[in-house]
Amino acid sequence: MKLYDSKLAPNPRRVRIFMAEKGVTCDNVQIDIIKGENLSDEFLAVNPRGLLPTLVLDDGTVIDESVAICRYLEETHPEPPLMGTDPVSKAQIESRQRHMEFDGLLGAAEAFRNSFPGFSSRGLAGNVGTIEAIPALAARGKATVSSFYESLDRDLGNSTYVAGEQFSIADITALCVVDFATGAARVAIPDSCENLIRWHENVSARPSAQA
Amino acid sequence: MKLYDSKLAPNPRRVRIFMAEKGVTCDNVQIDIIKGENLSDEFLAVNPRGLLPTLVLDDGTVIDESVAICRYLEETHPEPPLMGTDPVSKAQIESRQRHMEFDGLLGAAEAFRNSFPGFSSRGLAGNVGTIEAIPALAARGKATVSSFYESLDRDLGNSTYVAGEQFSIADITALCVVDFATGAARVAIPDSCENLIRWHENVSARPSAQA
Repeated sequence: MKLYDSKLAPNPRRVRIFMAEKGVTCDNVQIDIIKGENLSDEFLAVNPRGLLPTLVLDDGTVIDESVAICRYLEETHPEPPLMGTDPVSKAQIESRQRHMEFDGLLGAAEAFRNSFPGFSSRGLAGNVGTIEAIPALAARGKATVSSFYESLDRDLGNSTYVAGEQFSIADITALCVVDFATGAARVAIPDSCENLIRWHENVSARPSAQA
Repeated sequence: MKLYDSKLAPNPRRVRIFMAEKGVTCDNVQIDIIKGENLSDEFLAVNPRGLLPTLVLDDGTVIDESVAICRYLEETHPEPPLMGTDPVSKAQIESRQRHMEFDGLLGAAEAFRNSFPGFSSRGLAGNVGTIEAIPALAARGKATVSSFYESLDRDLGNSTYVAGEQFSIADITALCVVDFATGAARVAIPDSCENLIRWHENVSARPSAQA
């Protein structure tokens, strides 16, 4: 297998952590998003959407989208389970995973892409042509991230991990979102979010977090 | 089971169609989003995010997020399979399903929510407080939908359905996106998109499309 990857972006890290938790390794190709290598003819021949991560299997099958790549890895390497083990846990982990994406990652991406000078004409990710940044959307994204921190902090007062008492893909997405939001999107976690801070220290101490 | 549903919104329809394909029925509670019933104390006690659809199982377990609800139904009612049957088909259907959401639905929602007068202070869905509409985002959303039509039309020149030769959850999402985008978001499909138009007629003729 070969993973087209970017050390700078939050989505490829989700797959790297997922693979580290599973003990799976594969070839790695770094694509520099800031330089626009994801929009080169060479990479668009692999993934016409121009998005990372992208996994290519040994038979040439291409799988894109972080969660779909994780699904393939969960099916082929079931242990340890990271996407649930019965109908209810599978659904609830998927639900929480999506909360992290829709309530957190989208806002962080809006905050970053609409304020980073290098992306002033790349307001949306991937092979979508010229999209001018919208400053009001950067401000909205920052506010969304702040609300996300508060909501996640409340939820983490009731459970050890994002989707209950087991570490799961929902924690992986959340960790990548929080690190991207505090880093590139420049929204700090308030000191009052003690549950969130404790969880973040906990999951950041896992060896997979270095992936 | 009880489904909190809205006949007016695209996401609940995804679950209704999925259930119709599976032959599953359950109690139905209509929530009027335009009137803001999804933000009432009564509904927020069921789903604090204030979003539809939301499924409540007979033991009180709450599952939200369309795809997570579909996951539960796929696990408990495997036939006919709508989310793949082996690691590669599961991953590729999930990937295509997400393309429909991220490349199509997000843009259509941006176009609608930022131009519909009744949502002038509800720029984001759910229990997120006052979010002013951003007119530039409505314009960007319409452009995104137009690109989505072109891209989906190209892909449907190579396969009968969105994720290959089998009808799947990716077609259900795509149908709900296209009908929402042409309706509420007011972006017409160009006559040149012959593959998309043929596919749309095909999937719209399935009895489940009436759900």
